[in-house]
Amino acid sequence: MQTQVAIIGAGPSGLLLGQLLHKAGIETLILERQTPEYVLGRIRAGVLEQGMVDLLREAGVNERMDREGLVHDGFEIAFDGRKERIDLKGLTGGKTVMIYGQTEVTRDLMEARKACGAPSVYEAHNVQLHELKGEKPYVTFEKNGETVRVDCDYVAGCDGYHGISRQSIPADVIKVFERVYPFGWLGILADTPPVNEELIYANHDRGFALCSMRSKTRTRYYVQVSSDEKVEDWSDDRFWEELKCRLPAETADQLITGPSIEKSIAPLRSFVVEPMQYGHLFLVGDAAHIVPPTGAKGLNLAASDVSTLYRILVKVYRKGRTELLQKYSEVCLRRVWKAERFSWWMTSMLHRFPDTDDFGRRIQQTELDYFVGSEAGRTTIAENYVGLPYEPIE
Amino acid sequence: MQTQVAIIGAGPSGLLLGQLLHKAGIETLILERQTPEYVLGRIRAGVLEQGMVDLLREAGVNERMDREGLVHDGFEIAFDGRKERIDLKGLTGGKTVMIYGQTEVTRDLMEARKACGAPSVYEAHNVQLHELKGEKPYVTFEKNGETVRVDCDYVAGCDGYHGISRQSIPADVIKVFERVYPFGWLGILADTPPVNEELIYANHDRGFALCSMRSKTRTRYYVQVSSDEKVEDWSDDRFWEELKCRLPAETADQLITGPSIEKSIAPLRSFVVEPMQYGHLFLVGDAAHIVPPTGAKGLNLAASDVSTLYRILVKVYRKGRTELLQKYSEVCLRRVWKAERFSWWMTSMLHRFPDTDDFGRRIQQTELDYFVGSEAGRTTIAENYVGLPYEPIE
Repeated sequence: MQTQVAIIGAGPSGLLLGQLLHKAGIETLILERQTPEYVLGRIRAGVLEQGMVDLLREAGVNERMDREGLVHDGFEIAFDGRKERIDLKGLTGGKTVMIYGQTEVTRDLMEARKACGAPSVYEAHNVQLHELKGEKPYVTFEKNGETVRVDCDYVAGCDGYHGISRQSIPADVIKVFERVYPFGWLGILADTPPVNEELIYANHDRGFALCSMRSKTRTRYYVQVSSDEKVEDWSDDRFWEELKCRLPAETADQLITGPSIEKSIAPLRSFVVEPMQYGHLFLVGDAAHIVPPTGAKGLNLAASDVSTLYRILVKVYRKGRTELLQKYSEVCLRRVWKAERFSWWMTSMLHRFPDTDDFGRRIQQTELDYFVGSEAGRTTIAENYVGLPYEPIE
Repeated sequence: MQTQVAIIGAGPSGLLLGQLLHKAGIETLILERQTPEYVLGRIRAGVLEQGMVDLLREAGVNERMDREGLVHDGFEIAFDGRKERIDLKGLTGGKTVMIYGQTEVTRDLMEARKACGAPSVYEAHNVQLHELKGEKPYVTFEKNGETVRVDCDYVAGCDGYHGISRQSIPADVIKVFERVYPFGWLGILADTPPVNEELIYANHDRGFALCSMRSKTRTRYYVQVSSDEKVEDWSDDRFWEELKCRLPAETADQLITGPSIEKSIAPLRSFVVEPMQYGHLFLVGDAAHIVPPTGAKGLNLAASDVSTLYRILVKVYRKGRTELLQKYSEVCLRRVWKAERFSWWMTSMLHRFPDTDDFGRRIQQTELDYFVGSEAGRTTIAENYVGLPYEPIE
């Protein structure tokens, strides 16, 4: 087989890149290890930055999002018995975020790809990347017992933290930056109406909690738990009780509970690999960097990598600007590190850290108090939350 | 002896409080363990916030400061080979800081006190505070072999971290918050022209450096050193070489060196005691809280305590508003914690921490990059640096 850009992974990054390149007349082939149903079963993020929303519109995959997605102009931070609003729209000159689940984004992108006829191979096993540093890179995979070779110009590694793409780069040419947090998030999905029109991030002595949602009838709530907690030990009742403890009383009183339709514990980790490219391979999204979920940057950061790679490839194919390829990693990393910083900061500010002394705890409260109390402070939160601007590719 | 307010300590806080109360017609007696010369020999801060400048003007002790002090509209942060300016005046709607040494403030206040005839006792030994929780508190001290008793209404503890005032509060009624940083500042004072018109705070792989000044002909420079360094191991030459290493090249090239007239190492510590009052005793400044010097908040925070206590006492004596006395600690602590946070943050952002991993180091660089690159970020730095507003006493 042959293509221009081989895309490894049919998550939202791979599908979005594929759609954008297809619209630009660039051939792609998407290889995915799992089935479409498996991919759609992964419950992930639900807050889209303005930049990602714009990119989905550019890809022409916005019809259902614009109909069903909820535009949020702000969110709330609860701490010390108070609830303070971050007015995203007012503080950023009109920017907002869109509540629309990653699962829905993925579904829309899958349908768009099917509709346009661009090729995808699901259940592509044992994907391997070859000659990444050479002139003629190629990808092999196994399907129905046969080994297939795909010759290509470039490989986009959109296959996440555990994927083969990053593992195909020799360890001695990359540098890893990592922070593992001593807690996780226990999350449930439930078909209940949200307790609040906007998200609530809560700092509480018992630990962090988040009231999020996927729609006006489906909620996503989280509580911070220690790293060794097991999801089996958390009945729905125990979860709801713990969540109520961590919310301001008037919010807890209004919480409508119901049976969970998904319940899981996710670890919190910061991770960056540098550089994000190796020869003809370009790492995109989770393959190159992980953020803790506080601040909802993971999917959005993948989208900004997609935007960068897409804009570079268009200039490469249309104008022969191959020198731009060398800029991919540095352009991405500038924005990646800013989002890593924000996610680290939101995590640090909102969670209970087991080894924090009294001074550290008071500094955390004061940090919240100062940042929500100062217009400049609120603006730093808002401009990061809606997403820092994408760097243009000139 | 008898007075209305017994002030323990003739440093700038005690003297400023004394001057303000004297002008308001309230009697004070200042007791100081050391000689005036000893007090004036202590080299300390040199950056006065707008609020402190205004308070000195209110006390009528501003004539020389207004003549000799240098108004600074901004300062610079150097990192990663760059130098970025924080435009204090532009970012805060016109606020600035005043460069005028603590020694000079103290000298002016001592002269004002002498001129107005209000009493001070220097070399007052073995000061003890009595009956602080009773109706009739009093202070005793020894002078020339005699024990003297001073009856008073209130005691202002302006005698610093090592003073007797805080030690006079039973340990079980106060809570201590503390952070000791794993490094110190080696500082020198020299009669050389400043390398830059404004201060430069430098983050460098070898550690933090600060280019400060006391006047247009006297400089105060610092380099971060590890906690176990000895000042004897630092010749002037070694200091200047190390300083040059940590500054951007074009700044280092312009540095004019000269013999030090003072050289010392100061530890870095954050410390807060709560509450800041006990019966008729009110702790002011370093007696209640210490900040690391990064951000120049120590003296300024003492001045805001002075302002709060002064305004409360005036309302107590003039209008019988004794209920305000109970608010002293909470009013002070709100501002204290904000300044503690800012000093902790500036310290965290600018120093090299021996145990920081690669991720932490990159977050530190990104924090600098984001905050100086964002107008909102710069505004958070500026509004804290010029000093958050004093809370009114209604």
